[in-house]
Amino acid sequence: MTTIKDVAARAGVSLGTASRVLSGSSQTSADSRSRVLAAAAELGYIANGPARSLRRSRTDVLGLLVSDIRNPFFSELAHAAEQEARHHGYTVLLANANEDAEQADAYLRTFASQRIDGLLFSPQGTVSPQLAATLASGLPLVFLNRMIEGVDAPLYGTDNAQGVEHVLAWLRQRGHRDVAFIGGPDTISTGAERRAAYLAGREKYGISTDERLLDAGDFLAGGAAEAMYRVIDRGAPFTAVFGANGLTTLGAVRALRERLGAERAARVEVVSFDDLDWFEFASPPISAVRNEASSIGRLGVRGLVDLLAGRAATGQRVATSFVDRSPKGVR
Amino acid sequence: MTTIKDVAARAGVSLGTASRVLSGSSQTSADSRSRVLAAAAELGYIANGPARSLRRSRTDVLGLLVSDIRNPFFSELAHAAEQEARHHGYTVLLANANEDAEQADAYLRTFASQRIDGLLFSPQGTVSPQLAATLASGLPLVFLNRMIEGVDAPLYGTDNAQGVEHVLAWLRQRGHRDVAFIGGPDTISTGAERRAAYLAGREKYGISTDERLLDAGDFLAGGAAEAMYRVIDRGAPFTAVFGANGLTTLGAVRALRERLGAERAARVEVVSFDDLDWFEFASPPISAVRNEASSIGRLGVRGLVDLLAGRAATGQRVATSFVDRSPKGVR
Repeated sequence: MTTIKDVAARAGVSLGTASRVLSGSSQTSADSRSRVLAAAAELGYIANGPARSLRRSRTDVLGLLVSDIRNPFFSELAHAAEQEARHHGYTVLLANANEDAEQADAYLRTFASQRIDGLLFSPQGTVSPQLAATLASGLPLVFLNRMIEGVDAPLYGTDNAQGVEHVLAWLRQRGHRDVAFIGGPDTISTGAERRAAYLAGREKYGISTDERLLDAGDFLAGGAAEAMYRVIDRGAPFTAVFGANGLTTLGAVRALRERLGAERAARVEVVSFDDLDWFEFASPPISAVRNEASSIGRLGVRGLVDLLAGRAATGQRVATSFVDRSPKGVR
Repeated sequence: MTTIKDVAARAGVSLGTASRVLSGSSQTSADSRSRVLAAAAELGYIANGPARSLRRSRTDVLGLLVSDIRNPFFSELAHAAEQEARHHGYTVLLANANEDAEQADAYLRTFASQRIDGLLFSPQGTVSPQLAATLASGLPLVFLNRMIEGVDAPLYGTDNAQGVEHVLAWLRQRGHRDVAFIGGPDTISTGAERRAAYLAGREKYGISTDERLLDAGDFLAGGAAEAMYRVIDRGAPFTAVFGANGLTTLGAVRALRERLGAERAARVEVVSFDDLDWFEFASPPISAVRNEASSIGRLGVRGLVDLLAGRAATGQRVATSFVDRSPKGVR
């Protein structure tokens, strides 16, 4: 296991300096700070028991860093987390990374300089220097819906494989063979897990493995629309579209209507991971995996409260349900 | 003008105690704290120049307290505010009041105990003791989209009267006379302003003044659906519905479909204050006032940055545009 001595040696600073940086002290130079954080990240340094016990004075404030506050999944999750936190005597300060790892780092720095008791985090990708410093500081942390491989923190999130299984079964039942899949970034664990489950399940459910039908956006409407255009332009026919999150489905539906016109677009059945308010009003209505954002927010807070009380927290995958809005009968 | 002496006298505490409470010191008893804050609120005490100059050390963090993070208007506003703040070297911590004045107060306390440089605030209603304390502490503050009568802080928000005028003109052009109006709470300035503009403009635009067609919810989908049910149950016929914000329109559309069935509901034209992602997909598509959430968020941050730099900030009403999605030709 990497020790703080290894970090100091790699960074070329004294043990005291490394310790000050990693405990979040402001009495360090910008230069030594960046060297120590980079070294900690490279070596995968995680604070050990004694460092973790360096608790700050209690503030009754939790930090919640979400990926994109305009994504209804996260705004619902944030709302539920906050209600649950209030039951436990905590308030929650929210920060929005906007699907941007640099912005996430800026907020981790803000939370480090502000005084919070623990952090609920929906990460962008990999371990950044700032995240390494946060972990090293011993701040209690749980992951919400997304995690980072190799970081030892409990994850409260959707059971993505089970959710995708719902979609595959529905596609087969509706008689779809040629399905366009618009995924999310592979660097985000939910994007990677949903894509992997879909690819692995296609043959079993009689769905075409034509690679021209696969593309991915940025989990935002704009990038998803671009991905949908690329699939349409490749010319392989499809009768259904599967959007890997709610905003992806929004972008895909926009692109379909824009490129094919409302009438032809209405002949394509759309299914989504994440259920949005308006899916019942679309024509045809959009069927969807109901992703339990509220449960995940509440469970995450309970897990963090357990950590704060010195109890164990093991994380949990939350099962999804499926809302079938397709017209009755065979297509 | 009310002075700190008046507050101390009303609260029955010493001048020193009143001063400590109002400057946010923790060295005060819970009892004197609540008495001083209540007295400050009753007397409408606002800190004067010298008190305002009691600046804390700079943290480069702004607080943003929104009314409901699940309302897309506020999540878009929050996102824009945060991007603008980053241009100016600030990060933004978000808090969600969930349309609940008590919860808003809890967050004002959190921001008071945390260290922020200034506050962007979308308030729930009146001056609470905690808001009085926040104002008294001299924390630079701007209002976003909603304001409180009598509080001297710049407001950056929608021009509600101008937005409602768009709707009235559209209703007349579409030949509607019997229009159901689902408003928001009168205790929220946007709710009151939109309702007042609508009531005042009805006759000029040839719209029925039948009181049975007026109701109000809570600016959330659930309360709006209840209000829509009440209007339907009163039995006065209508050919159009005007929802006073985006979530109100969502609730109204749900209630229409639930009570009248999809086919009859589709014969009612719906128009909304706030334009939502899915309105283009509704049948028939929903026309809407485009409320410039992003501009408001950006302008609010610039105003707060001006205050922080010691410059004046005067507030601004932002004009709306109107998106007409009605089918071409006369109804």
